[in-house]
Amino acid sequence: MDTRVKEILGWYASDSPGTKTNLARLLNHGRLAGTGKLVILPVDQGFEHGPARSFAVNPPAYDPLYHFQLAIDAGCNAYAAPLGFLEAGAAEHAGEIPLILKMNSHDVLHDEKDPLSAVTASVTDALRLGCAAVGFTIYPGSSNAQAMYQQCREMIHEAKTYGLAAVVWSYPRGSDLSKEGETAVDVVAYAAQIAAQLGAHIIKVKPPTQHLELAEAKKAYEKAGVAIGTLAERVRHVVQSAFAGKRIVIFSGGATQANDEAFYDECRAIRDGGGFGSIIGRNSFQRQRDKALHFLSTVMKIYAGELK
Amino acid sequence: MDTRVKEILGWYASDSPGTKTNLARLLNHGRLAGTGKLVILPVDQGFEHGPARSFAVNPPAYDPLYHFQLAIDAGCNAYAAPLGFLEAGAAEHAGEIPLILKMNSHDVLHDEKDPLSAVTASVTDALRLGCAAVGFTIYPGSSNAQAMYQQCREMIHEAKTYGLAAVVWSYPRGSDLSKEGETAVDVVAYAAQIAAQLGAHIIKVKPPTQHLELAEAKKAYEKAGVAIGTLAERVRHVVQSAFAGKRIVIFSGGATQANDEAFYDECRAIRDGGGFGSIIGRNSFQRQRDKALHFLSTVMKIYAGELK
Amino acid sequence: MDTRVKEILGWYASDSPGTKTNLARLLNHGRLAGTGKLVILPVDQGFEHGPARSFAVNPPAYDPLYHFQLAIDAGCNAYAAPLGFLEAGAAEHAGEIPLILKMNSHDVLHDEKDPLSAVTASVTDALRLGCAAVGFTIYPGSSNAQAMYQQCREMIHEAKTYGLAAVVWSYPRGSDLSKEGETAVDVVAYAAQIAAQLGAHIIKVKPPTQHLELAEAKKAYEKAGVAIGTLAERVRHVVQSAFAGKRIVIFSGGATQANDEAFYDECRAIRDGGGFGSIIGRNSFQRQRDKALHFLSTVMKIYAGELK
Amino acid sequence: MDTRVKEILGWYASDSPGTKTNLARLLNHGRLAGTGKLVILPVDQGFEHGPARSFAVNPPAYDPLYHFQLAIDAGCNAYAAPLGFLEAGAAEHAGEIPLILKMNSHDVLHDEKDPLSAVTASVTDALRLGCAAVGFTIYPGSSNAQAMYQQCREMIHEAKTYGLAAVVWSYPRGSDLSKEGETAVDVVAYAAQIAAQLGAHIIKVKPPTQHLELAEAKKAYEKAGVAIGTLAERVRHVVQSAFAGKRIVIFSGGATQANDEAFYDECRAIRDGGGFGSIIGRNSFQRQRDKALHFLSTVMKIYAGELK
Amino acid sequence: MDTRVKEILGWYASDSPGTKTNLARLLNHGRLAGTGKLVILPVDQGFEHGPARSFAVNPPAYDPLYHFQLAIDAGCNAYAAPLGFLEAGAAEHAGEIPLILKMNSHDVLHDEKDPLSAVTASVTDALRLGCAAVGFTIYPGSSNAQAMYQQCREMIHEAKTYGLAAVVWSYPRGSDLSKEGETAVDVVAYAAQIAAQLGAHIIKVKPPTQHLELAEAKKAYEKAGVAIGTLAERVRHVVQSAFAGKRIVIFSGGATQANDEAFYDECRAIRDGGGFGSIIGRNSFQRQRDKALHFLSTVMKIYAGELK
Repeated sequence: MDTRVKEILGWYASDSPGTKTNLARLLNHGRLAGTGKLVILPVDQGFEHGPARSFAVNPPAYDPLYHFQLAIDAGCNAYAAPLGFLEAGAAEHAGEIPLILKMNSHDVLHDEKDPLSAVTASVTDALRLGCAAVGFTIYPGSSNAQAMYQQCREMIHEAKTYGLAAVVWSYPRGSDLSKEGETAVDVVAYAAQIAAQLGAHIIKVKPPTQHLELAEAKKAYEKAGVAIGTLAERVRHVVQSAFAGKRIVIFSGGATQANDEAFYDECRAIRDGGGFGSIIGRNSFQRQRDKALHFLSTVMKIYAGELK
Repeated sequence: MDTRVKEILGWYASDSPGTKTNLARLLNHGRLAGTGKLVILPVDQGFEHGPARSFAVNPPAYDPLYHFQLAIDAGCNAYAAPLGFLEAGAAEHAGEIPLILKMNSHDVLHDEKDPLSAVTASVTDALRLGCAAVGFTIYPGSSNAQAMYQQCREMIHEAKTYGLAAVVWSYPRGSDLSKEGETAVDVVAYAAQIAAQLGAHIIKVKPPTQHLELAEAKKAYEKAGVAIGTLAERVRHVVQSAFAGKRIVIFSGGATQANDEAFYDECRAIRDGGGFGSIIGRNSFQRQRDKALHFLSTVMKIYAGELK
Repeated sequence: MDTRVKEILGWYASDSPGTKTNLARLLNHGRLAGTGKLVILPVDQGFEHGPARSFAVNPPAYDPLYHFQLAIDAGCNAYAAPLGFLEAGAAEHAGEIPLILKMNSHDVLHDEKDPLSAVTASVTDALRLGCAAVGFTIYPGSSNAQAMYQQCREMIHEAKTYGLAAVVWSYPRGSDLSKEGETAVDVVAYAAQIAAQLGAHIIKVKPPTQHLELAEAKKAYEKAGVAIGTLAERVRHVVQSAFAGKRIVIFSGGATQANDEAFYDECRAIRDGGGFGSIIGRNSFQRQRDKALHFLSTVMKIYAGELK
Repeated sequence: MDTRVKEILGWYASDSPGTKTNLARLLNHGRLAGTGKLVILPVDQGFEHGPARSFAVNPPAYDPLYHFQLAIDAGCNAYAAPLGFLEAGAAEHAGEIPLILKMNSHDVLHDEKDPLSAVTASVTDALRLGCAAVGFTIYPGSSNAQAMYQQCREMIHEAKTYGLAAVVWSYPRGSDLSKEGETAVDVVAYAAQIAAQLGAHIIKVKPPTQHLELAEAKKAYEKAGVAIGTLAERVRHVVQSAFAGKRIVIFSGGATQANDEAFYDECRAIRDGGGFGSIIGRNSFQRQRDKALHFLSTVMKIYAGELK
Repeated sequence: MDTRVKEILGWYASDSPGTKTNLARLLNHGRLAGTGKLVILPVDQGFEHGPARSFAVNPPAYDPLYHFQLAIDAGCNAYAAPLGFLEAGAAEHAGEIPLILKMNSHDVLHDEKDPLSAVTASVTDALRLGCAAVGFTIYPGSSNAQAMYQQCREMIHEAKTYGLAAVVWSYPRGSDLSKEGETAVDVVAYAAQIAAQLGAHIIKVKPPTQHLELAEAKKAYEKAGVAIGTLAERVRHVVQSAFAGKRIVIFSGGATQANDEAFYDECRAIRDGGGFGSIIGRNSFQRQRDKALHFLSTVMKIYAGELK
């Protein structure tokens, strides 16, 4: 096995061989196999934002099989989705790509400042569907965060019991955070730390901005002179905040960007800052399939170091 | 077996043969057997609206056996009701018609803007009563939606474990939705998607109106030019929103309509838009039996394509 | 529903609607639907006698799908087989024919006078595979009978808990019985009674001979002048021994007979003696498919009373 | 995915996507990935025969890591071993080769004619160790066969519940079988059938000889003129006996052969008879590593059709 | 074993030998082994305050392995941390230092006056990671205190069931307490009593001030003339409040102090007041490693009585 994958697996020495095997499956699949980098296709927007907002721009994407095939053909490391989407294709595509079952979900039909996702799947489902990992979203900063931390912790515990890997989407949101604060570098770093302390193997956060949200944290950053001027520096700090780089931290792609070059630059910064890759949903499936394949191929080349 | 039924069962490849068998039972029973279309008689209004509101207009309908016989004689694909109603006739009518046990119920003695149904039956009850499926109502948009999603998910999980099929009534309601928004096409499509992602085999929604409720969704509809001008177009969009038509979506009949022709036209639109059928309660049992049989017969002829 | 089926279901008033529903499924399927008569295709000989002894004479029968299709095309009421054979076709043929899962199995690689079958499936499997019933073989007369009675009882109990029907193959064998005694009318009647007392819904025995095996029983038969001169009389007595005819008793076809007319006569005798039908394995699948279909069609005509 | 693998997975339509995924992992790994053929390294001889008998001829093989590395370097589809051997290397080699946990074991310190293996691992162990499958040995013909069938059935049931694949070693042995009879073609075919009926996904038997052991079976073979003159013909018959070729049947390599060419010829016959591959222990690890790699490479070339 | 340790263990006579063994492990490890004094390194600030606030001042401390090594090299009695931090080093450092798993955690992204920590680990995790004890934070004074008391009680119960020791961090906070009241001597003594009554083996509180918060308590203190003028006196009172000194009470170090001598004096007072030691996080890891080792060495000398 590739040295880098061995090195990464070495950080998870408390985990069972089963969990290590599933981490290895994620790291050893697709175009980036063996590089220690990951590009994952997540498609939970049908639930999180609604079907038309997610798929009307590219109608073939209403079909759950579309995303399996896109992830496979693009050479992604894994495909992540809620229960229904995975059930709709797991049998046809058994063994073709590592799957990550999203275990909780949230919709926008009820607006709240302190969100609480519903648990919508179980570790048993993940085993039944042949998944390599389970995924869970927490909203640090929500007044409901405690409930989600506990559900997340139980999910992680059960996943480890059955030899699966655990991915945590850590998205700060809540009534005490400003909109800008949700992606502030201190808050994103904190969100990464929380996920790591909960026992996550893979942590997904948003690319951080230069903003500092928390007064006490701001003092610490300024006193220590933490470098946060460039995205690469901020990524480096977030990765450092996840156990000195000893947990896999990947970054979300966010809403579709008008300009692909801007997105590629973001990936370059993630790569240069020591990030482990990207999880790219809307920027992938909200464009035509051939364009998506080209787009993902470029992103993977950047992570593989084939493109500066 | 009919080719269309085989095709439909093929969409559920992750499910056990037991669940497929029960789906086949629903699709292969009654006047529409083998067509891939369904007309189901649901009688949960006694609990949901109260007995007199439901049955006083046609007093024989107070008797639970009345509805079994009506569903059987009309050639419905299935009869759906809460625990008490099914218990009152399941032995006498064993094997005569597929049954769907409604697993949660809500009454109107306490008025709330954000409803939460009570779980009033179990999968074990469904097995004991010989049901082919269980049914669950969710209210996307309610501040209690998370609790219902989780209960629904557990019910679906257990149903699949024991080889039953799962039907989800997905009715948007809640303090953040306008009255008009409850049947807005964007909201109904979203409700269908949520049910599908929760793992439902059959999804029941209300016929959607042309209204668009959610600001972000409205932009997406307009940008993509989604056709929603006619009911058939809206049905087509809702069916598309349920995994590109790979989940069975049926439409509720709603309150009794003065004009049967209007109802028939609605069925024609559902049919022409690719909908899988109707679930018709009040329009069936709130009229005299012979008229109900004629009414249901006409609806079935429309779905069977025997009537334009 | 047919009056006769209703009458039969009336004998099982202690059972749940679920179990009655599954009994109704068996009675209402195929060419004999609604007649109260059953012709079932059982294919457990691959395990019980070995594959070549079972299938070499008609090689397509090595394929598990062959038997599903044969049972369906012949219009049998049900198809019964061990776990492996059912798993190999239950998904493809979901909903096409009621299935009976054979729960225990025995092979002939070890010769013993007092056989003990191994439990080779579970009620959970039956639910997962969409079966209407489970089946269990007991060997009254074996020194191991107690173990099998207890396993059988547990299986029946669990089947009833989950709304399934229970079929018991009751085949006297053991070191204290003569070879002739295994089909002696007193022993067969006794075997039927034991199965009925264990709670079986459907009892399968071999056609009884005029032989009387047990000394004490012989006295009773002679004293009371029980009519056992013809097969029809003996069938009538066996059926009477199963709760005065209030349990469904069907008869096995046994080894392939050289002469189909002899087999047909046996069916006539079963019919005329009030038997409920036949379970016909080797005589069905150990001949070419078209001949098997003709053969089974003739048997069904006899049971339906279309043929004298 | 390779068409052949898709075809094979299609035979297991009753299984969950999880189990299909793990079958795919076995079929898609190593030098024979995608061909539908398998060469598996099993090392259970330390328990079954004793350490010196197994490893003294090639002392590096005392080390459990030796076998992991041998299987990986040879490009085997999987490595199968008892609990202790897998625990000793599963962490170091996580994700490098599919593992099969042998669930029961037997030693030769107590001599018996009717062997009964001890259950020495659990499905939970298999998940903890990241295995793709569990394995179980049955001895059809042993007076203890019933106990083993039941344990095997439970293991298979639990494996399927958690999305693993199940491999059954079906080795006829017992006081009623002659030594020659243990590999008689009728007995081996019967053993394959029993494993298939128990629900095995992959069946391992010994290469059959022309001998016919069972009197009743012998008649059937002769009457039907079953071709058993060559090993390829016998393999074809055994594969046919496992559900007309719809279950994966592989053949054991047996004791070390003096003559590799004889072994290669056996593999050619297995291949030409439609067998799915070999499971080769002693012939692999009881020779020096470089010779073992050459030997296994030759065997794989034969199965891949690169060598006549 | 040292007499003092025997004496201390004697206070826990209701506990199992397993729990006593783990208490003895804590008391018999490191530079203070056998003295009955404890200096523990806790690192939960990454979760509680955020990573940069905790570690930016000494960046090597982002690495979980840093803290294991610091605690080991300093000769601490134990190292306490949340799940993620322990998982990241428990395998590498197995057996090198007693571990305490922090079972609940709280972050500062959502500000609240009445805090509720989330349960973020389980006793099963503690066993899996080889911990000697589990730790739990309660906030007496929070409107959520009841929930935490119950969770704490369950954790203690489960810990005792499995032979672990239980440490309770008892930190008064809540909307009815003034800021000053959080460390008021009456409140701290009360917090120690609550933890002791909940069954804690080791209780951690903050060094108390001379302030008296509660009116009724104030009267009692004044009436009885409780000596609270010096820190040593207040410590003595707090220790007395924990079962007359028969529970181990240790004191937190709090935020980094500008002046080490002030800290040393605090330790002297704790020692002189009969306190059992200190739990020192930020004052340890928020300075360079060599300085931290010197600092901790000085503290231990004070507790050992080697330094006045």
